[in-house]
Amino acid sequence: MRVGILGAGQLARMIALAGTPLGLEFIFLDPSADACANKLGEPLIGDYNDPKLLAQLAERADVVTYEFENVPAEVAEFLASHTQVHPAPKALAIAQDRLLEKTFFHDIDIPTPAYAAVDSLESLEQAMTTLCYPAILKSRTQGYDGKGQSLLKSADDLKSAWELLQGVPAVVEAFVPFNREVSIIAVRSVSGEIVFYPLSENLHRGGILRVSECRADDPMQQQAESYVSRLLEELDYVGVLALELFEMDGHLVANEFAPRVHNSGHWTIEGAETSQFENHLRAILDLPLGSTAPVGNAAMVNFIGGLPKTEELLAIPHAHLHLYDKAPRKGRKVAHATVRAESREQLSELVKKLAALADQVDDS
Amino acid sequence: MRVGILGAGQLARMIALAGTPLGLEFIFLDPSADACANKLGEPLIGDYNDPKLLAQLAERADVVTYEFENVPAEVAEFLASHTQVHPAPKALAIAQDRLLEKTFFHDIDIPTPAYAAVDSLESLEQAMTTLCYPAILKSRTQGYDGKGQSLLKSADDLKSAWELLQGVPAVVEAFVPFNREVSIIAVRSVSGEIVFYPLSENLHRGGILRVSECRADDPMQQQAESYVSRLLEELDYVGVLALELFEMDGHLVANEFAPRVHNSGHWTIEGAETSQFENHLRAILDLPLGSTAPVGNAAMVNFIGGLPKTEELLAIPHAHLHLYDKAPRKGRKVAHATVRAESREQLSELVKKLAALADQVDDS
Repeated sequence: MRVGILGAGQLARMIALAGTPLGLEFIFLDPSADACANKLGEPLIGDYNDPKLLAQLAERADVVTYEFENVPAEVAEFLASHTQVHPAPKALAIAQDRLLEKTFFHDIDIPTPAYAAVDSLESLEQAMTTLCYPAILKSRTQGYDGKGQSLLKSADDLKSAWELLQGVPAVVEAFVPFNREVSIIAVRSVSGEIVFYPLSENLHRGGILRVSECRADDPMQQQAESYVSRLLEELDYVGVLALELFEMDGHLVANEFAPRVHNSGHWTIEGAETSQFENHLRAILDLPLGSTAPVGNAAMVNFIGGLPKTEELLAIPHAHLHLYDKAPRKGRKVAHATVRAESREQLSELVKKLAALADQVDDS
Repeated sequence: MRVGILGAGQLARMIALAGTPLGLEFIFLDPSADACANKLGEPLIGDYNDPKLLAQLAERADVVTYEFENVPAEVAEFLASHTQVHPAPKALAIAQDRLLEKTFFHDIDIPTPAYAAVDSLESLEQAMTTLCYPAILKSRTQGYDGKGQSLLKSADDLKSAWELLQGVPAVVEAFVPFNREVSIIAVRSVSGEIVFYPLSENLHRGGILRVSECRADDPMQQQAESYVSRLLEELDYVGVLALELFEMDGHLVANEFAPRVHNSGHWTIEGAETSQFENHLRAILDLPLGSTAPVGNAAMVNFIGGLPKTEELLAIPHAHLHLYDKAPRKGRKVAHATVRAESREQLSELVKKLAALADQVDDS
């Protein structure tokens, strides 16, 4: 069985590492000959919309999936008309457009921050007559890790924020004074079997995820499961989906969803009975889904922009290193470490040590 | 950092899968272009004693290791004189010759079954005047999975057993009426750091390992650690070493040791904080060794000669499949499954289910 993946970055790499012991083979389409998953399968090197390469991918792969949501609609449609693609193009189309995404959340009764569509300075000014400051202006598409976003503190910020977007359609949303950020990783198979991981509690800095911690028995688990179930069912979704949420005083508000394996679920490699990567594969191949039960108390720390010395990291008890084989570069995720501990207290200490190492090499 | 491995079978494959997240690259020397680790690194295809390939391996790898003990002495010596090789040739030389091995155990006060060297029918007859029946005649070299062994029930069996060996030097040893078979996996790094895994309790059938179960807090742990420590220190050993032992009424008797990662340690992939494969790499690269603490109650079941249907296996809760990407063939190890459970009782039930699947496809 051969799995095709659009993209050959670290998510594809971790999918391939999880799938190799299941006897799966991989074929990747990525513009970069150096993409870090390439060594773990057969690389097709070229643009994501190269018709020849897409035809090869569709022909050679038994099922196609992807590691990012910004797949051009025509590419997703082409692949879906030639082979099995999971998740389906509809989920991609919604996830890659913040306005469609928020509208979809609204339509299926998942709460979101107040928001409005913006396609001109006038419409932004108009929107801010009903939304309160501070608010955030975000491009509808292509945003990730905080890119394409501006904080609006007062009416004085509107013109410069809009100009920064260079005319691309946008959405403005109320800033949510959240208590914490969480995400739920859920999986739905071709047959409709659904499993949920325990909530991840996430810490961002500079718009980039830094630390995720598994929160078994979190009081918000049930509410998160109810929202993400609705997403999975309404989209007839197949694969792993990550829903990012803000918690405000015991209520969850949806931020965005990712139709793929997700950075906030990397702790599942060691910290769950079955990793998100293996379960994504099981889901798209219609195999029984694996248990999502937590294994100990687990957390993950991202390494951004630089790498710690391997010997320093591995000297931290229970630390597991996951290097992505990517050249360090400002703001680039180059590795993560997961850690499992017997108690929450021990976990906090280990996370502090890892985060200190991460801060030393972080140039962002 | 590039690690060279002599052999590209399932052990090399699992080493490479463990090492890829550590940012390591691999180069394999194996006679078979289809060897199952080849896809996870750079394959050198040819004989183990091909001087050109060995020179390439020595030049391109920062450190060389192997997945089997039957490396010709001149190959091990050649590599050791050109690059770092772990474990060192001495451990190989001893492990590949049952007489040297037993003599070495004897010299460092590790108990063994009574034994004698055999190089003719006369010497076999002579030996059996002091050893009791039943006894086992084994070729000194090249034996694995019960190959090259004959059970001697009475003096009537001596001639035919000797003839079966076709004149190769042998060793005859007393049959040990053991209560159980166990093994201990130990690791020693270049710096001399040593860690031990909890004992594996092993079930063989037809000379082939079928099931290994992690026995945390086993009363024999300390005795096993004391014996294997002696081996590691006396050999100035670097890497993973597996010592197979018989237990008779609270005493351990050494059967043999393997100077490499070992089938009875495959449960460590999911069942220990750090797998034997990762710790072998940490040891030979002189990195801090990882914790060997058990994670839940873990066991492993081998699939010999045939493969279960993936969907049937993955439907067993907590089962983790490790396919070796090898064509099924009589008596050939083609996969294993590990399983973790919260209690020993639950573990027993899950092992029974896995073993039933294994028996269905087993043609041996």
